Amino acid sequence: MQNLPLAGYKPERTEIAVRDTNIGGRDIILMAGPCAVESGPQMHQAAAAVKQAGGTVLRGGVYKPRTSPYAFQGLGREGLTHLTAAAKEHDLLTVTEVIDPASLEEVLNHVDIIQIGARNMQNFQLLKLAGQSGKPVILKRGLSATIEEWLSAAEYILAEENPNVILCERGIRTFETSTRNTFDLSAIAVIRKMSHLPVIVDPSHAAGHREYVPALSKAAVAAGADWLLVEMHPHPKEAKSDGVQSLTPTELQQLAADLVTVAASVGRTMVGTGSGLDSLRSKIDSIDSGIIELLAERMHVVKLVAREKSPDRIRDHNREQEIIQRLGRIAAELQCPADLVREIYALIFDHAIKTQLQDKAHRLDSMAYGR
Amino acid sequence: MQNLPLAGYKPERTEIAVRDTNIGGRDIILMAGPCAVESGPQMHQAAAAVKQAGGTVLRGGVYKPRTSPYAFQGLGREGLTHLTAAAKEHDLLTVTEVIDPASLEEVLNHVDIIQIGARNMQNFQLLKLAGQSGKPVILKRGLSATIEEWLSAAEYILAEENPNVILCERGIRTFETSTRNTFDLSAIAVIRKMSHLPVIVDPSHAAGHREYVPALSKAAVAAGADWLLVEMHPHPKEAKSDGVQSLTPTELQQLAADLVTVAASVGRTMVGTGSGLDSLRSKIDSIDSGIIELLAERMHVVKLVAREKSPDRIRDHNREQEIIQRLGRIAAELQCPADLVREIYALIFDHAIKTQLQDKAHRLDSMAYGR
Amino acid sequence: MQNLPLAGYKPERTEIAVRDTNIGGRDIILMAGPCAVESGPQMHQAAAAVKQAGGTVLRGGVYKPRTSPYAFQGLGREGLTHLTAAAKEHDLLTVTEVIDPASLEEVLNHVDIIQIGARNMQNFQLLKLAGQSGKPVILKRGLSATIEEWLSAAEYILAEENPNVILCERGIRTFETSTRNTFDLSAIAVIRKMSHLPVIVDPSHAAGHREYVPALSKAAVAAGADWLLVEMHPHPKEAKSDGVQSLTPTELQQLAADLVTVAASVGRTMVGTGSGLDSLRSKIDSIDSGIIELLAERMHVVKLVAREKSPDRIRDHNREQEIIQRLGRIAAELQCPADLVREIYALIFDHAIKTQLQDKAHRLDSMAYGR
Amino acid sequence: MQNLPLAGYKPERTEIAVRDTNIGGRDIILMAGPCAVESGPQMHQAAAAVKQAGGTVLRGGVYKPRTSPYAFQGLGREGLTHLTAAAKEHDLLTVTEVIDPASLEEVLNHVDIIQIGARNMQNFQLLKLAGQSGKPVILKRGLSATIEEWLSAAEYILAEENPNVILCERGIRTFETSTRNTFDLSAIAVIRKMSHLPVIVDPSHAAGHREYVPALSKAAVAAGADWLLVEMHPHPKEAKSDGVQSLTPTELQQLAADLVTVAASVGRTMVGTGSGLDSLRSKIDSIDSGIIELLAERMHVVKLVAREKSPDRIRDHNREQEIIQRLGRIAAELQCPADLVREIYALIFDHAIKTQLQDKAHRLDSMAYGR
Repeated sequence: MQNLPLAGYKPERTEIAVRDTNIGGRDIILMAGPCAVESGPQMHQAAAAVKQAGGTVLRGGVYKPRTSPYAFQGLGREGLTHLTAAAKEHDLLTVTEVIDPASLEEVLNHVDIIQIGARNMQNFQLLKLAGQSGKPVILKRGLSATIEEWLSAAEYILAEENPNVILCERGIRTFETSTRNTFDLSAIAVIRKMSHLPVIVDPSHAAGHREYVPALSKAAVAAGADWLLVEMHPHPKEAKSDGVQSLTPTELQQLAADLVTVAASVGRTMVGTGSGLDSLRSKIDSIDSGIIELLAERMHVVKLVAREKSPDRIRDHNREQEIIQRLGRIAAELQCPADLVREIYALIFDHAIKTQLQDKAHRLDSMAYGR
Repeated sequence: MQNLPLAGYKPERTEIAVRDTNIGGRDIILMAGPCAVESGPQMHQAAAAVKQAGGTVLRGGVYKPRTSPYAFQGLGREGLTHLTAAAKEHDLLTVTEVIDPASLEEVLNHVDIIQIGARNMQNFQLLKLAGQSGKPVILKRGLSATIEEWLSAAEYILAEENPNVILCERGIRTFETSTRNTFDLSAIAVIRKMSHLPVIVDPSHAAGHREYVPALSKAAVAAGADWLLVEMHPHPKEAKSDGVQSLTPTELQQLAADLVTVAASVGRTMVGTGSGLDSLRSKIDSIDSGIIELLAERMHVVKLVAREKSPDRIRDHNREQEIIQRLGRIAAELQCPADLVREIYALIFDHAIKTQLQDKAHRLDSMAYGR
Repeated sequence: MQNLPLAGYKPERTEIAVRDTNIGGRDIILMAGPCAVESGPQMHQAAAAVKQAGGTVLRGGVYKPRTSPYAFQGLGREGLTHLTAAAKEHDLLTVTEVIDPASLEEVLNHVDIIQIGARNMQNFQLLKLAGQSGKPVILKRGLSATIEEWLSAAEYILAEENPNVILCERGIRTFETSTRNTFDLSAIAVIRKMSHLPVIVDPSHAAGHREYVPALSKAAVAAGADWLLVEMHPHPKEAKSDGVQSLTPTELQQLAADLVTVAASVGRTMVGTGSGLDSLRSKIDSIDSGIIELLAERMHVVKLVAREKSPDRIRDHNREQEIIQRLGRIAAELQCPADLVREIYALIFDHAIKTQLQDKAHRLDSMAYGR
Repeated sequence: MQNLPLAGYKPERTEIAVRDTNIGGRDIILMAGPCAVESGPQMHQAAAAVKQAGGTVLRGGVYKPRTSPYAFQGLGREGLTHLTAAAKEHDLLTVTEVIDPASLEEVLNHVDIIQIGARNMQNFQLLKLAGQSGKPVILKRGLSATIEEWLSAAEYILAEENPNVILCERGIRTFETSTRNTFDLSAIAVIRKMSHLPVIVDPSHAAGHREYVPALSKAAVAAGADWLLVEMHPHPKEAKSDGVQSLTPTELQQLAADLVTVAASVGRTMVGTGSGLDSLRSKIDSIDSGIIELLAERMHVVKLVAREKSPDRIRDHNREQEIIQRLGRIAAELQCPADLVREIYALIFDHAIKTQLQDKAHRLDSMAYGR
């Protein structure tokens, strides 16, 4: 890989602050919204749905780079007004795509994050201007850009002394046609090895069909993606572009709930718990299922541990103590009450002993009867 | 998609039994071992490492399809002996690749699963013979095969009245060179929509570098993969082929531990808890971390629920009852003791009430002082 | 590139004899026929059309490797009879595809050339058997095989002491969908640099549409391809497979006529002049047009030469002599009568002098009048 | 294919005038020069070499879109001065790449053709500005653009009422690494079917190695390319970019000579005969070889015609008359003197008769002796 003094690997991964939100750390944030801003009511509904699902950032394109000059090109300034008004109403951050110097200037003071799309990944002038803006920039990977070229494009922004570059994998072009693009999941791992920059994913453009978005989103979080940029439309069938790959509000809410346990499984926290009793309770249900899954798994492993140990050492107070101390530290970090953890684990340990004794009795019994 | 009467979608996903193990259901199984069988001691060490990590199936190639006629072509029958002896010693199932009718016949009565490699995905004669064998067959996706062609290849096996076809994604050929192949993660979701057949992944051949294997493995499980086929070598640096993409025994053990929580996060169970106190305890640690993560997340959501509710309804016995009943059902299914769940959730509910009261007092306090 | 002692570059390109025909030298040969042998009458018509167009080899698949097990799989032994009978009747050589050991054995004593298809390029057992057969083997490039892998596959055949390997480019798999595959024209040049083996093309499978076949064929000859393998069907619309990419007999005849001048333009000879007065005369017309094109171009260049020379040296007998001698040598090599060449060039030189004198007079005239 | 009212197919192909040169008609024009303008002397030498080879247009990049911000970015305005001065000195047209609005404005009044590079094929703002400029625009295909997307990009320029769009194939991105890109030769044929716009090729960027450029250039002309854009550097080893794919002046001259016969073979004329006695004479030699090749081929076919005809009809005056008239028409079109053609063909016909009589006598003789 060529020399990338600014985008290349550093021991510390970079965290980028967008207002009071951080990217690149422990937290995983959901950005969602329609491909294109179409109207005020549409954005109002979209923002409400994003908020309810627990999203933090509202996306919506107002300048659309379209393959054909006759396709809908975006609402421009009017769309920007709808985007920012809807976001403000629901206390969300905003992100929108810029496609040239004029659109960059237009949106600069109105949105929190600017996005440079796949087609413009090597529009070097635009990269430089985005660099000079100092704004957080989501830089999407080009349709057939190697990871090295992608990092080199990031270098153009960084070289203008703007450290706030967020890389976004959105699928590459291959021969496979059952998805719109081929989601290069490995890019997350490669970027985390080659660079210190945060890396996010856009599963919607990769998949091209809404039904594949949840699987891709979970996979991305499990692989180490920092944020998610998902297309959601209040009424996908009426969308002016990309309707077929947009989630409904309900699907977004479900996905957000499902991601809580996946994030936790790799030591990350899905930020933004959503609003509304229904939404919150579905999240609690998802968490509780996860806890029980792990509890069952724990029981199972403990049983095997018992068989490995000498038969007279049922209880191992030192090991219990170690566990409690370790979990206390983790709990403190996560602002989870340490006394609750202690009480729960006391129950768990007691139960384990009880089970082991039964198991032992049962096995001795079996032996006695020659079974 | 063309007519695939046997490989196409059915409402019920197919479960395939390999001796007393099942694929296609809730359980996720780890298959691991070296790319090529090189010697008896190597396979003995490999089998011990797979067992310790909790793996169920030992892999090892004895007939190697190599790009060059001058590369190591595998140990053949001698290698088969090493593979089966090592597996038997550690009570593991076996899988090995067949490359032509002769090798198929040779291994048929000695291994549990036969594998057809990417280069032979459209070797239709071999597919038919594999079909006639009746054995479980892992069918790897061709280097540039579309998913449709892959399912059509499966149809060749199924048409011989062998229903035991397991599809294996192993990366496709693209322009990107930072990984050996481009892991097409979406294929898991597409297969689950297009077909009833189990789908597994080989993250090692996709990545080509061992350091990317954990991320790809976690992602695959999160996306719905049924099993994992991972390359592991007792001494990767001395491997005759693919050493650079093989995990060490320690790395495999760590990966297996990490996968427990990821599997649980999507409602699956990582089967095979491994052996040896160290291995089991590292698995317990991983589970406990996951539990605390979820507990912390739960506390956080509950706080928000409290704010949504009317201030006089701190405790909601009906909701508590619902939760307990729901979790009881899940616990029963997972063979987790229901009484333990009840006791733990009693603690959790009590703690939640206490926190809410404090929170409320704190907020009233703030209001009183005009803060 | 890895070590390829047998397939790699040698100063002398290899020529392979197929009966009394040679591949790898100056001659370019046309192989044509239907994708699949369907009936006796079909092959009779096909053979007549190939002969009339000037083709030397009749192609026709009797064992078809089909993506789906339910697609037409070829007529097998019966088809072989049709192929060889039709070829014998019209004094053509034959080529057919083999897909496994059984089909190889079946066709071995009946056809002149065996073909290994793209899907079997890395079916190493089949490569070895083809090597042991000693027959001329057309080895098609795999759908996503690198040129290096393709040469390594050839090495498998050569290593069995069969030097008669003919490489065939037939398009690779890319994202572009307007052609069935992407014809990798550069492969011809790369192979000629990397290897001593003959290289041919199959423009039909590359293009996937008959209307693109002529352009690809001409390009391939211009780039240095040794032979052409073209799909032609007496009635493309009724073809059981690949009808849309098959030329009609008339289109094949036109293509063969057009290729005569293209071959000549790069110092090659299109072998096989066809039969039937119409076919031969259309070939003569094509040649005559080429001669006039070059004559006109020559006149034009000579005029410029005249302007570069000093005005008093209109005739340069030494240069004329040199040209006559050089062309005499070329004519002898091509068995073209030297006296005819001399007579024609005497006319050409005389005419050139006449033109130069007129041109000079005209220019002096212009100068005199200050034009 | 989507609706492309302006770029889509029309029965008449469009011809674009660039000063007194035309693209899209019978003439094939050579554009050549270095990748990047580096100095005045370099461009002076480059222009002289282009002129000598018979090129019409001088290329040279002054604004370079480079993958890395630290690579040489071009000389800008100073480079433009070198380019235009060198072109003027040698009476050449000019082409240079624009990469953003500023560079477009800078070069607009100084060069004859503007070029939009592969990376900017979907920089829609730049396309629109290029459209508004009214200048001839070479639009290179994007690295992974489908032909449909490429035509849609052209539509952006055409929609600004600038009809002067020239499409340029320069290779697409695939898995193959022996060439820099994969030259999609079929694109020429597809464009000629889908669109009325001229299509040219850049074999240098496709190949990435100078040794493959001649084969690709000949192939492109044979397939119907309208112009060629070739990289040539006076001293490739010292080039600041792309030296390895640049021809030397001598190689360019040889290529230009070789292309004369290839162009003639498909009914096109390679415009620009070059200057300097050596260059012109090498072109004459190439033409003469072509004439003899065709003459020899003609003799061969005539012999076969004779055998098809009834033995008593050696001379066919009607056919001779037809040929003379047909060639007279072609000669007139090409400004080749009709009397010379008549005289030459009188010789050819006489010789054919003589040969046929000998051949007949010989065959009768053979029969008499039972041979």
